Amino acid sequence: MARMKLKTEAVVLAADLIGTSVFAVEGALSAIHGNLDLLGVMVIAFIAALGGGVIRDMLIGATPPNAIRDWRYPALTFLAGLLTFIFHSSFQAIPTQLMLVLDAAGLSLFAVAGVEKATMFGIRPFVAMLLGTVTGVGGGVIRDILMTRVPAVLQTDIYATAAFFGAFIVLLGRRFGLSEGSAGLLGGLVCFTVRLLSVAYGWHLPKA
Amino acid sequence: MARMKLKTEAVVLAADLIGTSVFAVEGALSAIHGNLDLLGVMVIAFIAALGGGVIRDMLIGATPPNAIRDWRYPALTFLAGLLTFIFHSSFQAIPTQLMLVLDAAGLSLFAVAGVEKATMFGIRPFVAMLLGTVTGVGGGVIRDILMTRVPAVLQTDIYATAAFFGAFIVLLGRRFGLSEGSAGLLGGLVCFTVRLLSVAYGWHLPKA
Amino acid sequence: MARMKLKTEAVVLAADLIGTSVFAVEGALSAIHGNLDLLGVMVIAFIAALGGGVIRDMLIGATPPNAIRDWRYPALTFLAGLLTFIFHSSFQAIPTQLMLVLDAAGLSLFAVAGVEKATMFGIRPFVAMLLGTVTGVGGGVIRDILMTRVPAVLQTDIYATAAFFGAFIVLLGRRFGLSEGSAGLLGGLVCFTVRLLSVAYGWHLPKA
Repeated sequence: MARMKLKTEAVVLAADLIGTSVFAVEGALSAIHGNLDLLGVMVIAFIAALGGGVIRDMLIGATPPNAIRDWRYPALTFLAGLLTFIFHSSFQAIPTQLMLVLDAAGLSLFAVAGVEKATMFGIRPFVAMLLGTVTGVGGGVIRDILMTRVPAVLQTDIYATAAFFGAFIVLLGRRFGLSEGSAGLLGGLVCFTVRLLSVAYGWHLPKA
Repeated sequence: MARMKLKTEAVVLAADLIGTSVFAVEGALSAIHGNLDLLGVMVIAFIAALGGGVIRDMLIGATPPNAIRDWRYPALTFLAGLLTFIFHSSFQAIPTQLMLVLDAAGLSLFAVAGVEKATMFGIRPFVAMLLGTVTGVGGGVIRDILMTRVPAVLQTDIYATAAFFGAFIVLLGRRFGLSEGSAGLLGGLVCFTVRLLSVAYGWHLPKA
Repeated sequence: MARMKLKTEAVVLAADLIGTSVFAVEGALSAIHGNLDLLGVMVIAFIAALGGGVIRDMLIGATPPNAIRDWRYPALTFLAGLLTFIFHSSFQAIPTQLMLVLDAAGLSLFAVAGVEKATMFGIRPFVAMLLGTVTGVGGGVIRDILMTRVPAVLQTDIYATAAFFGAFIVLLGRRFGLSEGSAGLLGGLVCFTVRLLSVAYGWHLPKA
């Protein structure tokens, strides 16, 4: 039993590190595309990966935010930014499809982790779902603001919507008696699936 | 006496809901104008209405901010955003004059509520006035940043200035022995009047 | 001994006021250049001077941030903004070289103060250096965002890098047994020197 718990923790940690790295690499590529210098690339990598969690933690009063309480997270994102900077032509050669899948995985993980942390801090369900969504998309929003672009997430695609839906499933699953782990897994899978289906079938939210 | 207090509370609550809704509708219209999708419209409605209070609460350390502690506020703004999205041609037909008056009412209410909350948290008068102003204009500033526009409030009009002046009158009234309620009412009226006079007479702050 | 301590405190206070004023004047000039009105100029002066410290304080949970806890700081920056607005042609006549030197001094001071405050709040070294850097450059970043420009600090120059390096020296000095005051002085001098050398010799970070 204890061994299985250890295994679960290792999986969660691995998923967290992968999600953070993917978001950091995406941020760095976007910063390189925007002609920022090495420092700019590393900062955008950091913000794209950890900004959502920082907003969530500051809103719920969990200061200092986890992203700066544990030095390994900023260090990981700076490293990811640096490597992307050095080997940017290799990174740019990663197939779009693969990046989309990895990004959807990161989004799912962050949304689930966000709703779970908010609940742990006593936030009520509806707002907890919002905070899960913010955890998933907040880094990208700050990244876009810093690069003076209207945040992509406000304009197109089922992205924040997938995160919100996944967070909803987490809470629904718990309400129906699922364990915390199972509810999280189910919500993550739903977010992941909705996101990829929306890309595959070109789903969009309506415009007025 | 108790009945009168109840009546006052009902008036304050009604004013708060109206102010929040007006700011949310204005935000949503601005987002529709900027070609955002349904989610973008709802997010901007939320931020335009509640962003100022969130900044104030985070600055004074009142976390989680009231806007997310009480689920009815985000729910109200999302609903306002959704309705504005669906019936946007009706909303766009609201006479500019009426929107200006409602907006001035919302600004006055938020400025007064902001200076009162800051004072309650032990913030000194000068800074409390600033926080009242931030409560009134902060949502519009974040809305403009997200839509990559220089915040309107920094460029033209007596808007933040009216909020600051109203907040000043609240504290002045208290200093001269007015009750909290009377000082708030007086400050709100002053903000409202200054704002509408400035529009009517085309007052502007100087530029260099 | 007590007399010497008093003298040190007076020097630190004077440096702090000078640094804050320089950043406020620079912010105000930038806002005038961007055609903002009087209020906009005063707000940008406030944010450029105190925004970095506000971000730092909110991240480490030191609310309300020092910049609004002590009314003299906002008052000083508003006054600096007002004076810059009125006498803007005189301020614009200040030689670029002098502004560069004063700005480098402000940056050094803020970076050192930032890393020291972060350490005092129990933040670990690597993140404390980041927070020192944020204290130095954060105000300029918010200023640029409000004026819808990609933050200068992400694009060019050895600026944030100098701040980070100075913060690093502060912690290194302490590790090697220097007193807090000496380590701070050394770190500040290093930041100041690196910054000015980078301008003199046109050093830049690489782009991809």
